[in-house]
Amino acid sequence: MDETNTFITTLATILPSPGKVYLIGAGPGAPDLITVKGLTVLQHADVILYDYLVNPALLQEASTMAQKIYVGKSNGHHALSQEEINLLLVEHAQNGKIVARLKGGDPFVFGRGGEEAETLAKHGIPWEVVPGVTSAISVPAYAGIPVTHREHTAVFTVVTGHESQERGESSFDWEALAHLNGTIVFLMGISKISFIAQQLMHYGCAASTPVAVIRWGSMPEQQTVIGMLNTIAEQVRQAQLQPPAVIVIGKVVKLAPLLQWFTPECDDRKLA
Amino acid sequence: MDETNTFITTLATILPSPGKVYLIGAGPGAPDLITVKGLTVLQHADVILYDYLVNPALLQEASTMAQKIYVGKSNGHHALSQEEINLLLVEHAQNGKIVARLKGGDPFVFGRGGEEAETLAKHGIPWEVVPGVTSAISVPAYAGIPVTHREHTAVFTVVTGHESQERGESSFDWEALAHLNGTIVFLMGISKISFIAQQLMHYGCAASTPVAVIRWGSMPEQQTVIGMLNTIAEQVRQAQLQPPAVIVIGKVVKLAPLLQWFTPECDDRKLA
Repeated sequence: MDETNTFITTLATILPSPGKVYLIGAGPGAPDLITVKGLTVLQHADVILYDYLVNPALLQEASTMAQKIYVGKSNGHHALSQEEINLLLVEHAQNGKIVARLKGGDPFVFGRGGEEAETLAKHGIPWEVVPGVTSAISVPAYAGIPVTHREHTAVFTVVTGHESQERGESSFDWEALAHLNGTIVFLMGISKISFIAQQLMHYGCAASTPVAVIRWGSMPEQQTVIGMLNTIAEQVRQAQLQPPAVIVIGKVVKLAPLLQWFTPECDDRKLA
Repeated sequence: MDETNTFITTLATILPSPGKVYLIGAGPGAPDLITVKGLTVLQHADVILYDYLVNPALLQEASTMAQKIYVGKSNGHHALSQEEINLLLVEHAQNGKIVARLKGGDPFVFGRGGEEAETLAKHGIPWEVVPGVTSAISVPAYAGIPVTHREHTAVFTVVTGHESQERGESSFDWEALAHLNGTIVFLMGISKISFIAQQLMHYGCAASTPVAVIRWGSMPEQQTVIGMLNTIAEQVRQAQLQPPAVIVIGKVVKLAPLLQWFTPECDDRKLA
């Protein structure tokens, strides 16, 4: 144990009994896709810190006494910095509160949940993660696309388009991604759809590789545009599709017409 | 609409009103990691077809009147063939039943849910998928490992070790997988841990790449063994770790000691 941790442990004895932080995945959007555990914690929380993509219906499940704090990020507009969020989590827990940190999808899939967990662990705050239904798998499922299928692929890769944008240079190997021959899911990549498609074709993916872009997956507003690597950017432009959206690339996209089971109010599948 | 579909639609008018099939993800093991929607459907189902990895506690949530059918696969021992399962789903739905098809993890992640959905769609049976918390993300989370982390990786890949075993030849590019520089999660791969480690090292992954093997993730019996690509096969052998287990490979595994939050009854982390 390093000196910082020793200090914090000692300090804790003179602070109010510490609370606990739950990093909860709220799922892709439909409120009933939260887990039973996630909902139970939410109903008992003293403080709720929630993101932009969390369905407001979930907040109505909370106690009327609970303090609800919006910390979310909408397309680059951050209500609070990550450091401020981390600090809030620590402070409320040290004040003895049960804190629900409610995040879209799963907390450990590009949600910076790992960093929040690190902060809590380093401060000696009790915490748990309550995994959620990730948008990477469930949003394609709501568009009739299984990310794996015995006849098509035994592997799928999930990438954040957002991070690579922020960093300027992407930190993974596009050539390897193109060669992997599996399903590829991009979260938060719609503003880079043209770049993504170009990169994959440049490194050997066929121009005719099927692609689906799904906005507001699992919600009544769900919209799906289906095309190919060499057409999808223009289709997205014509459909004026904005974030939040999930991009799915690979042979499994071909199953979408047969496996369409969800009836949203504004599907754009006609563009396919 | 093709001829088969027309025939089935016509036939449906003289059959009892068709029921509906829900392909439900039960989550990684802990019963409260099922979704609210999944639990609700389960409680109202007339017929439940469940797999080996589904927690028996969930079945107790079902109506006492519900017919519960074990169809599961335990390590290659199949109670029923996939064709027999497909047939059961269709038959019960055509008899007007609400059918809950309960699968471990998420139905569309290596669960052959895609094939079941295809069968239902081709027979004109109403169906829905109820996504679940996938073991690929949640089991690492229960061992303190976030599959993504801003400082370590912006990409993760999920592979089935099982399928590649059945097929003899694997259908994805090992070299690309090794070069991708992201987190790699193998489901159902523990019996091939030696082969997996050798392949990744052969194609350029450092022998010191951190690896975690997690058995019965999220359950009281959870066991974690942590090592490196060049040590893990021997560690798994010494710990006598059997399926079901999830393998996680990559820098994020280093976070496990700090982020250990779940206290199972028989963790083997001392072997690390």
